[in-house]
Amino acid sequence: SPALSPAASARARVVHCTLKTDSRRRELAPLIPDVMSSNGSVVLAYSGGLHTSCILVWLKEQGYDVTAYLANTGQKEDFEEARKKAPKLGIKKVFTEGVSREFVEEFIWPATQSSSLYEDSYLLGTSLTRPCTARKQVEIPQREGAKLCVWFELTCYSLAPRIKVIAPWRMPEFYNQFKGCSDLTEYTKQHGIPIPVTPKNPWNMDENLMHISYEAGIPEDPQEPSASRSLQEDPGPAKAPNTPDILEIEFKKGVLLKVTNTSLALFMYLNEVTGKHCVGRIDIVENCFIGMKSRGIYETPAGTILYHAHLDTETFTMDWEVRKIKQGLGLKCAELVYTGFWHSPECEFVCHFIAKSQERVERKVQVSLFKDQVYILGWESPRSLYKEELVSMNVHGDYELIDATGFININSLRLKEYHHLQSKVTAK
Amino acid sequence: SPALSPAASARARVVHCTLKTDSRRRELAPLIPDVMSSNGSVVLAYSGGLHTSCILVWLKEQGYDVTAYLANTGQKEDFEEARKKAPKLGIKKVFTEGVSREFVEEFIWPATQSSSLYEDSYLLGTSLTRPCTARKQVEIPQREGAKLCVWFELTCYSLAPRIKVIAPWRMPEFYNQFKGCSDLTEYTKQHGIPIPVTPKNPWNMDENLMHISYEAGIPEDPQEPSASRSLQEDPGPAKAPNTPDILEIEFKKGVLLKVTNTSLALFMYLNEVTGKHCVGRIDIVENCFIGMKSRGIYETPAGTILYHAHLDTETFTMDWEVRKIKQGLGLKCAELVYTGFWHSPECEFVCHFIAKSQERVERKVQVSLFKDQVYILGWESPRSLYKEELVSMNVHGDYELIDATGFININSLRLKEYHHLQSKVTAK
Amino acid sequence: SPALSPAASARARVVHCTLKTDSRRRELAPLIPDVMSSNGSVVLAYSGGLHTSCILVWLKEQGYDVTAYLANTGQKEDFEEARKKAPKLGIKKVFTEGVSREFVEEFIWPATQSSSLYEDSYLLGTSLTRPCTARKQVEIPQREGAKLCVWFELTCYSLAPRIKVIAPWRMPEFYNQFKGCSDLTEYTKQHGIPIPVTPKNPWNMDENLMHISYEAGIPEDPQEPSASRSLQEDPGPAKAPNTPDILEIEFKKGVLLKVTNTSLALFMYLNEVTGKHCVGRIDIVENCFIGMKSRGIYETPAGTILYHAHLDTETFTMDWEVRKIKQGLGLKCAELVYTGFWHSPECEFVCHFIAKSQERVERKVQVSLFKDQVYILGWESPRSLYKEELVSMNVHGDYELIDATGFININSLRLKEYHHLQSKVTAK
Amino acid sequence: SPALSPAASARARVVHCTLKTDSRRRELAPLIPDVMSSNGSVVLAYSGGLHTSCILVWLKEQGYDVTAYLANTGQKEDFEEARKKAPKLGIKKVFTEGVSREFVEEFIWPATQSSSLYEDSYLLGTSLTRPCTARKQVEIPQREGAKLCVWFELTCYSLAPRIKVIAPWRMPEFYNQFKGCSDLTEYTKQHGIPIPVTPKNPWNMDENLMHISYEAGIPEDPQEPSASRSLQEDPGPAKAPNTPDILEIEFKKGVLLKVTNTSLALFMYLNEVTGKHCVGRIDIVENCFIGMKSRGIYETPAGTILYHAHLDTETFTMDWEVRKIKQGLGLKCAELVYTGFWHSPECEFVCHFIAKSQERVERKVQVSLFKDQVYILGWESPRSLYKEELVSMNVHGDYELIDATGFININSLRLKEYHHLQSKVTAK
Repeated sequence: SPALSPAASARARVVHCTLKTDSRRRELAPLIPDVMSSNGSVVLAYSGGLHTSCILVWLKEQGYDVTAYLANTGQKEDFEEARKKAPKLGIKKVFTEGVSREFVEEFIWPATQSSSLYEDSYLLGTSLTRPCTARKQVEIPQREGAKLCVWFELTCYSLAPRIKVIAPWRMPEFYNQFKGCSDLTEYTKQHGIPIPVTPKNPWNMDENLMHISYEAGIPEDPQEPSASRSLQEDPGPAKAPNTPDILEIEFKKGVLLKVTNTSLALFMYLNEVTGKHCVGRIDIVENCFIGMKSRGIYETPAGTILYHAHLDTETFTMDWEVRKIKQGLGLKCAELVYTGFWHSPECEFVCHFIAKSQERVERKVQVSLFKDQVYILGWESPRSLYKEELVSMNVHGDYELIDATGFININSLRLKEYHHLQSKVTAK
Repeated sequence: SPALSPAASARARVVHCTLKTDSRRRELAPLIPDVMSSNGSVVLAYSGGLHTSCILVWLKEQGYDVTAYLANTGQKEDFEEARKKAPKLGIKKVFTEGVSREFVEEFIWPATQSSSLYEDSYLLGTSLTRPCTARKQVEIPQREGAKLCVWFELTCYSLAPRIKVIAPWRMPEFYNQFKGCSDLTEYTKQHGIPIPVTPKNPWNMDENLMHISYEAGIPEDPQEPSASRSLQEDPGPAKAPNTPDILEIEFKKGVLLKVTNTSLALFMYLNEVTGKHCVGRIDIVENCFIGMKSRGIYETPAGTILYHAHLDTETFTMDWEVRKIKQGLGLKCAELVYTGFWHSPECEFVCHFIAKSQERVERKVQVSLFKDQVYILGWESPRSLYKEELVSMNVHGDYELIDATGFININSLRLKEYHHLQSKVTAK
Repeated sequence: SPALSPAASARARVVHCTLKTDSRRRELAPLIPDVMSSNGSVVLAYSGGLHTSCILVWLKEQGYDVTAYLANTGQKEDFEEARKKAPKLGIKKVFTEGVSREFVEEFIWPATQSSSLYEDSYLLGTSLTRPCTARKQVEIPQREGAKLCVWFELTCYSLAPRIKVIAPWRMPEFYNQFKGCSDLTEYTKQHGIPIPVTPKNPWNMDENLMHISYEAGIPEDPQEPSASRSLQEDPGPAKAPNTPDILEIEFKKGVLLKVTNTSLALFMYLNEVTGKHCVGRIDIVENCFIGMKSRGIYETPAGTILYHAHLDTETFTMDWEVRKIKQGLGLKCAELVYTGFWHSPECEFVCHFIAKSQERVERKVQVSLFKDQVYILGWESPRSLYKEELVSMNVHGDYELIDATGFININSLRLKEYHHLQSKVTAK
Repeated sequence: SPALSPAASARARVVHCTLKTDSRRRELAPLIPDVMSSNGSVVLAYSGGLHTSCILVWLKEQGYDVTAYLANTGQKEDFEEARKKAPKLGIKKVFTEGVSREFVEEFIWPATQSSSLYEDSYLLGTSLTRPCTARKQVEIPQREGAKLCVWFELTCYSLAPRIKVIAPWRMPEFYNQFKGCSDLTEYTKQHGIPIPVTPKNPWNMDENLMHISYEAGIPEDPQEPSASRSLQEDPGPAKAPNTPDILEIEFKKGVLLKVTNTSLALFMYLNEVTGKHCVGRIDIVENCFIGMKSRGIYETPAGTILYHAHLDTETFTMDWEVRKIKQGLGLKCAELVYTGFWHSPECEFVCHFIAKSQERVERKVQVSLFKDQVYILGWESPRSLYKEELVSMNVHGDYELIDATGFININSLRLKEYHHLQSKVTAK
């Protein structure tokens, strides 16, 4: 579920699972009795899937009055069906919130600017969607007078510390009742909870505008290749087009330029074209916040092309020393986003710097997509610090060749003294 | 030329160029007069090409007694021909040194361990060959009683500060005489200097075991695509095999395991197989030590597969916090190697740490190569800190789910206080 | 209590308090009934004070069989009296362990080498004593077949993960029973627990070889000056000797040289002489691991003189670039030690580096102590990289003055290009 | 001389020296012939001392038309006398610029905010005055149509790259002529250059608002104590007042609050009061930009009290994680300022962040000054993140004690796994 805080997700994934039989489609009248809601109102980010459906019903059983919240961050879900199901589960209020535009402009763009790459590989597609969904979710209890939320703890505590967050999957009364998939399935049957037919793939897929991630099932076994899957069953790079597509991408202040289009439409277009060439698939083991290593498989097409095009633009237009400092802040940014601290004073601080560093990151760049690879072809930039004359012969630039002699002599002064002393001491 | 110190290479490249006519093949008797070598003996790393040949003759003219040194780091050069040419240029002593084994074991292995990537892209193929070649070169003047060297200043000053390095390309008397390729060509004609026929490609190619780099000519113009070249004239990924090759790679202490073979043979084998799939090509703009941006195109097949396989192995077997510290040291390592400080107290210090961090980096990993991509398939490791039971459902590991509640509450305590204060101050 | 893990100490301090009446000295027969010890054996680091005495008795009441452990890290406590009290509290086994020597050699020395200063001020006297005491404590349950410990969780879990740590002060059944000092006092009366007469100072003092820390009572109120206290009631700097003491200190490999004496005796001697001059008092607000800010007042005489003398020695003998890297690792080290991760792979990794960096840190240095200040007077070192001739006039060293011109020109090349571009873009 | 770029100062100091005889006071008519100024106009930062006076005359001899520039950054110099001397040296234009206010507000304040401490000791008094003086100097050639400057290369090249900087002390024609003090003295005699009587102290003193530094003469010999000097001849801490002075200092946005006074007056007042107590003297060996170690003795009274009061304020009011990031940037800032890169894109970038981090750094703090020590007494702040109730007993804050158990369990999960694996591998 995209709605899990990082610490929770590592464990919670185990509850995600597929159902063997499809008995839950029986259209029953609402079976969930309207028990006295003595425990107050709780807002639940709800996807219509097995996991959130069971939690929803379980919360009602515990005496909570549940308001469901569906956040659309670009996943291909049937929001209408989920809405329709709500009354059957005894829910009176359902809020569907489209946050795709904010997701692109306020979360994906800063992440692209920062070149954030968790553990040198992961573009943070899930980690980014959480603070975005959560920020919207926090508004609901405040609006509706509720005092409780499910999921997204760090964001809630940071933006609205008076709201209490409950986490059923970490409450013994919940996790002792639901030890695995079969318990959840049994529960849906007992309560007539309708859940969607799930294809028989053995892993759990989670999707948003930024990426698709796969977990559970086979992916947990590291000796099981995932990429071979792509290369065999799936279209995969082997079946990707045999001719490259060439795109022209333009950045201004480190952000994709919106000329005739919205950021959202641009990003979705990039996803489509880039995805066709199987760009941006990774299968990694990652270190979770809670100190375990876990496995993740991610597909991030548009994010990947932007990562490369932006990085290349940055090298062209950013001063070397500034970039080294920014690189360190980018590492910190990736760690903060991954561990759930997007909404924190330190992440706000770091993102402010990264935005500042992007003031001159501006360029048009031609990119070729081919078989899971992104190639930068050519470019032009009014802001480029690359100066062809300086590196070519016949025009002397702002320095004399002889200057380099002094530069090297001074740089090696320290090395010479070190050597002298070493030999003196060794000689003794 | 691989023999340039970083600061020099940016400029010196301009002197590398191709000859239009091939008049220099005339087999003349040694025309270089044996002028009085009043300036002492100088050791010159010599490749037999246009540039080093001219410098050699020019040094003789300046009254130096020249000893030539040919270092073999795996480039496909005709060392025999270069040797034969020497007497014709008036050189009495020529040393050919094969340093490929040291290059792999003492330079490429530590670099692989450090995951050094200069500016997030470049695997440092040229930067690594310099300190290796230089270390051997420094031995020659000490052995032969010479007091002077050409090239490799930082290494020389670090390992043998009493030897003076001369850098003709930064001496006004040299660079005012040779303003460009035509001056060099004219000089070879005048002095009957034989130089090899150069194919008509417009860029200069530089090769060693680790990589091939291309520079000068078209590459200097950033609007000129380089990758399209690969995709059109060259075999390139488009024409790379349509079926993947699958390799099994084994690391011990972060180093490729030598079972039945030498490191060198293993690395050469990897270069061959990986190169076939066009893996490891980059075309970047990089920040030179002297503060300019310059363009580089590199092909690093074995280095690239090792980078990925090693990184993946490391994530599996290295503690998270240790890895974060090591990651920072890897950034520093890349910068030091790139700027020529391999032989320095700080690089020695950093490399010592990186080696220490590798003690448990041990794994067997299956890797698939396909169309310029490296995919990790499966793996097994006695040292893996990844624990399937911990992330899967039915076995509770070393912690209770409820622990995560306290973990998150404590982590958000600071966020809550910050928010409280912010609202209090804002409210005023 | 030195025995608290960092997270706990911030809270636990509130339980430390002084008793107004001294009714607990009544010499009663052991009143603690020998209840069935059904919960197994637990090892408790015990100081004989109010807090640990109550916990001890409470644990017995809960059905644990308690083994007491007294660690001597140099505090001026009456270990003999504490031992004698044990049988009266129903304890059969008491272990007293002197760990002062290990504390100095294995904990204080590496900390001195690292120049670890938490938040630019605190020399980590309490943080260092914990892993030392804990390492010894962990041996006891292993030796005695116990499965439980109190305190020192991170160290226990790192060195002996099979032992479970219980933390009464975080168990609702404990903290709901003991809401404050009066509850604890009442409890000692009821159970006839003898505790030492406490002087009427309003803060809690905690002492070990490295430092004395003061907390609770007045120190919690930040508007209450602590230093003024020193200057009024206490001898303080104002009454410190009006003539300086001058010491000669010698380092080898960054560690105080033991010539005629043991490390322990040397450190104790330094504490005495330095303390006389009121050196090393700080009164700070510090950020706790759990995200709160708390106040600490510390006196670290020998630690402070060593910090300064070592830092100065390091600047003399360590290469500049190595020192910059080491400085970053020192910051990390301070954070790890403060947050309780001394026994962790990352701290082991960092300490290994710091020890390596000290190989050449060797010098004899004269230090003057006067009114809370440490002045370095003079020094001599065979390893000094400071070279008087190089900075003085008449002897030219290893470089020509003109070299600096090239050095500066090359360093400013980047600045010029940046300026050119800025003006071009601004001009548009 | 405050006017030297860092690289230069290490060497240039050798030319600073005292004159034994005072023959140069003879009031001669201008002896400097008005040679043809064929080399163009040059702007020279001029102090009226031996060194700059000689350079001035020497530049005239070389055919330059010299404009003198006297920058007042708070040194106690006789500017009027220096002005009067100018015509006697053949100078037509003299500009005296008072930059004290800018120095405090635009250079010292940001440095205080950053807590910049070069090599853990030095508050950068000289390094800060250079970019301030230089920024003003750069305006003069632009205004006067000159194309040349002396000193301050990095700043000139950064702010006005079209102006060329000449550095006589690095030109062989200068340094071969002036090998030492006696040559300079001889030159003043020959040319009737009036220079001030210098007291007979053996070191060179350099003063500005921020600090006084001492170099050359005895200070070059590290075995010669400098502090003992303070304690013997000078008033020194031993003779400092025996009663403390107590000040109340208030910060807003990390900057000393100006209520009834200007920044400049506040800073000067602090210098006076603090200096009286001998606060802020250091005697260190520092690593110069050019790779040498050199010795510096500095007195920075107001800077030192502000450093401590600000640091303490920051710990109170700044989020922990933000402060850790800011701490790293502060280290970078100190390095940039010391090596002369104040006017650079990266320093601008870093200073922007530091200013941002100060938004909530606001507090009133009582500080006691006594015998070279600064003690923070009490404080109050509307922005304090320190919360007395949270650390004291009877009020439970925003968390339950039991939360810490989960926090510690999760934090030790990684340690347990690491241990398990280690023992498994070791057992084999």
